[in-house]
Amino acid sequence: MPGAPVVKLRETAIAPVIDALKARWPERTSVAEAVRLHHANTLSWHRPQPPDAVFFAETTAEVQDVVKLCADHKVPLIAFGAGTSLEGHINAPHGGVCIDLSRMNAIVSVEAEDLTCTVQAGVTRKQLNDHLRDQGLFFPIDPGADASLGGMAATRASGTNAVRYGTMRENVVALTAVMPDGRVIRTARRARKSAAGYDLTRLLVGSEGTLGIITEVTLRLHGIPEVIAAAICPFSTIEDACNTAIMAMQTGLPLARVELLNELQIRACNIYSKLTLAETPTLFVEFHGSQNTVDEQVALFKAITADNNGGEFQWSTRPEERSKLWQARHDAAYSCLVLRPGAQVVATDVCVPISRLAECVTATKQDLADSGLFGPIVGHVGDGNFHVAVLFNRDDPDDVARMKAFTERLAMRAIAMDGTCTGEHGVGQGKMSYLDAEYGNALDFMRQIKRTFDPDNIMNPGKIFTL
Amino acid sequence: MPGAPVVKLRETAIAPVIDALKARWPERTSVAEAVRLHHANTLSWHRPQPPDAVFFAETTAEVQDVVKLCADHKVPLIAFGAGTSLEGHINAPHGGVCIDLSRMNAIVSVEAEDLTCTVQAGVTRKQLNDHLRDQGLFFPIDPGADASLGGMAATRASGTNAVRYGTMRENVVALTAVMPDGRVIRTARRARKSAAGYDLTRLLVGSEGTLGIITEVTLRLHGIPEVIAAAICPFSTIEDACNTAIMAMQTGLPLARVELLNELQIRACNIYSKLTLAETPTLFVEFHGSQNTVDEQVALFKAITADNNGGEFQWSTRPEERSKLWQARHDAAYSCLVLRPGAQVVATDVCVPISRLAECVTATKQDLADSGLFGPIVGHVGDGNFHVAVLFNRDDPDDVARMKAFTERLAMRAIAMDGTCTGEHGVGQGKMSYLDAEYGNALDFMRQIKRTFDPDNIMNPGKIFTL
Repeated sequence: MPGAPVVKLRETAIAPVIDALKARWPERTSVAEAVRLHHANTLSWHRPQPPDAVFFAETTAEVQDVVKLCADHKVPLIAFGAGTSLEGHINAPHGGVCIDLSRMNAIVSVEAEDLTCTVQAGVTRKQLNDHLRDQGLFFPIDPGADASLGGMAATRASGTNAVRYGTMRENVVALTAVMPDGRVIRTARRARKSAAGYDLTRLLVGSEGTLGIITEVTLRLHGIPEVIAAAICPFSTIEDACNTAIMAMQTGLPLARVELLNELQIRACNIYSKLTLAETPTLFVEFHGSQNTVDEQVALFKAITADNNGGEFQWSTRPEERSKLWQARHDAAYSCLVLRPGAQVVATDVCVPISRLAECVTATKQDLADSGLFGPIVGHVGDGNFHVAVLFNRDDPDDVARMKAFTERLAMRAIAMDGTCTGEHGVGQGKMSYLDAEYGNALDFMRQIKRTFDPDNIMNPGKIFTL
Repeated sequence: MPGAPVVKLRETAIAPVIDALKARWPERTSVAEAVRLHHANTLSWHRPQPPDAVFFAETTAEVQDVVKLCADHKVPLIAFGAGTSLEGHINAPHGGVCIDLSRMNAIVSVEAEDLTCTVQAGVTRKQLNDHLRDQGLFFPIDPGADASLGGMAATRASGTNAVRYGTMRENVVALTAVMPDGRVIRTARRARKSAAGYDLTRLLVGSEGTLGIITEVTLRLHGIPEVIAAAICPFSTIEDACNTAIMAMQTGLPLARVELLNELQIRACNIYSKLTLAETPTLFVEFHGSQNTVDEQVALFKAITADNNGGEFQWSTRPEERSKLWQARHDAAYSCLVLRPGAQVVATDVCVPISRLAECVTATKQDLADSGLFGPIVGHVGDGNFHVAVLFNRDDPDDVARMKAFTERLAMRAIAMDGTCTGEHGVGQGKMSYLDAEYGNALDFMRQIKRTFDPDNIMNPGKIFTL
């Protein structure tokens, strides 16, 4: 479902850019097909649309030079971090130069007293957390994949523990970015808050490389919790599981993670990970705090599950036991294929107000059944965010059509419930067609920002919206 | 220190607008001098610059009609909530129509399950909290004054408990705004998070009425904590007090408030509120949680104060005792004048990374002494944000000049420490001249957004930046 047809640049535009890149950085410019294809190959089902060339940047100044070069020739630029995005974000439907930022992987500074750090865009979240561990600090945002922090900022990533720690929106303090005209900006200073002027940080977070290329990110850090407890609890119905999460949130219980796996997802995990969980909607929960506060949280959560007809509640604070309890959740992404070997998976996501979550999940399950499709459902239930991993045969046009119609209905269902067509995966190419329904008039103001910052539309064109 | 000279609109522009307003809404349009002056009279020292007319709006549709009318005639529009801003935000240096939103005071909806509510822009925070109390919910942002929620969104307000609950940036879910061309937009839906497109919500939060007029706000709510404990602890030095806050934050202690009053502020409070506190830097702290977790927080915080040479630590969970302990903090804003009766007060604010706070406060105290000025200091120390209430004689040009030079040095000192010229009061007219130093290049991109949304510069002109 690419949002725009492949439009190759005229040779006259791209050729001098590639020549200039090769002349200055022969070792770090590639037009090899394998390299180009690799840079359009993501974890998603979107058809790869490779760039004309890939440049491996090592400094912000180099990115700036390449942006100026491309701006002079009106050649598209696509920023590439770890290639883990899911909606065709790094495709090059109009060709152009992919700027691979993975070599910009320096941790520039850690200010432990301020609970901040600054990293180059190519640093991955696992790399950062390995670096921080000795100082008792961590960066909480965990989208699953070992994404780059620049990419996570660009897509406004979140994941399992956003319910407690927020998303990239709340955890990016400031950004350095190369703008479409080649100027380098720093969006904010390092204070925890500011009331000085427009929030350019939040404007670039989630802009998916369409307004500028993020080269450095200053992040908010958190202390590693003294005690981490994990728990799981099965429920007879999705409603009971959702109501448990709602009550816990209302009580102010600071759940670090609260994940819902539906019965089909549990079945997939049982097969894939050789488990014997009851195949019923199940909550996977994590608590962070001191021993004392975690004990209290667990007791309170247990009482809430009991009030909502929860089944046998299991929990542990010991690392091995925690891992075992959570194994089904950890393996969820990989397990789906056991349900239909050889199938293609679309991991789509929507987010609704939590009061509508049970209704949305239930309607979605019914829709899958009615469509002759199937796919497990996993939800970051504290945020009202859930994923459907639709399994389909990409070589069967009917199956593809059914999948597309289903994902469209899912997005529109979420929007109709005052939710969003994507809680965390972003728009990319895959969700462009829903923004009109989601934003109405407001979309025009997004377009206006894009047009004024990037009048030649060189920054990741063909993403988020058509101009 | 108004940012722009008073430029009256040509009569030809404003006259037909006033005629049209009077014709349609005779009861709700005023050109009376008292009404106009009232709408330029804030809690600040900025010289009032009244609008040409005041319109009392009752619906978003009316605001839309007035914006269209003014846009047709290129007449400025200034949104007015409760008039509690501090940097000349509601002044009308170019004349125009003030839209008073105080009658738009309906609480549109409360979704307790989702911990959200939607209010019209004129609802004040106290009004909202009175409404929510029975449901066990509250809206935490507390800038001191009983500001309107639309105004708080427009200025990105925060206050004493931002350290735990965040600022308006983190607590606004979505906005309805009338844009400069008269279109009404809704910036987002009600999901807790979204990765769909540019973050227009965060762009409008803090835009101070220069990009559009906020008419409705959807807010994130929180459960009223079961137990609230208050504590105070004196220190010999600012450094010890700041280090206590830093250690508490690093430990992950979820302080709900942590306020620093310096010795001069304590002296003012002792006189004003008839207290006998030791006149030394003092931390005022509040803890929220269950009895169990609050007890634990208090014990841990007490140990941290002891490690940092803290003096006698007093605390209580009983409401009357809590109020008594915190009385000095509550009265701080009113107490300053006892130090110099008849003086004018400038309440200025800056925010720095917390690791630089002690240094910044100490240098600022020295600067006050060197300048022959004096003013108490109060800090939201968990955020690195502090206020100086400079006392001066507004009829003495030398005193005014000293005060201006001091506030400029303070802003530049904060910026030099990787901080911001305003943590929570906003730019308005008072801080326009510092944004170049704070943002450099990035400021141009803010201007570009302003120009493309509001090419005729009708929305609160003369604020944040000159175009």
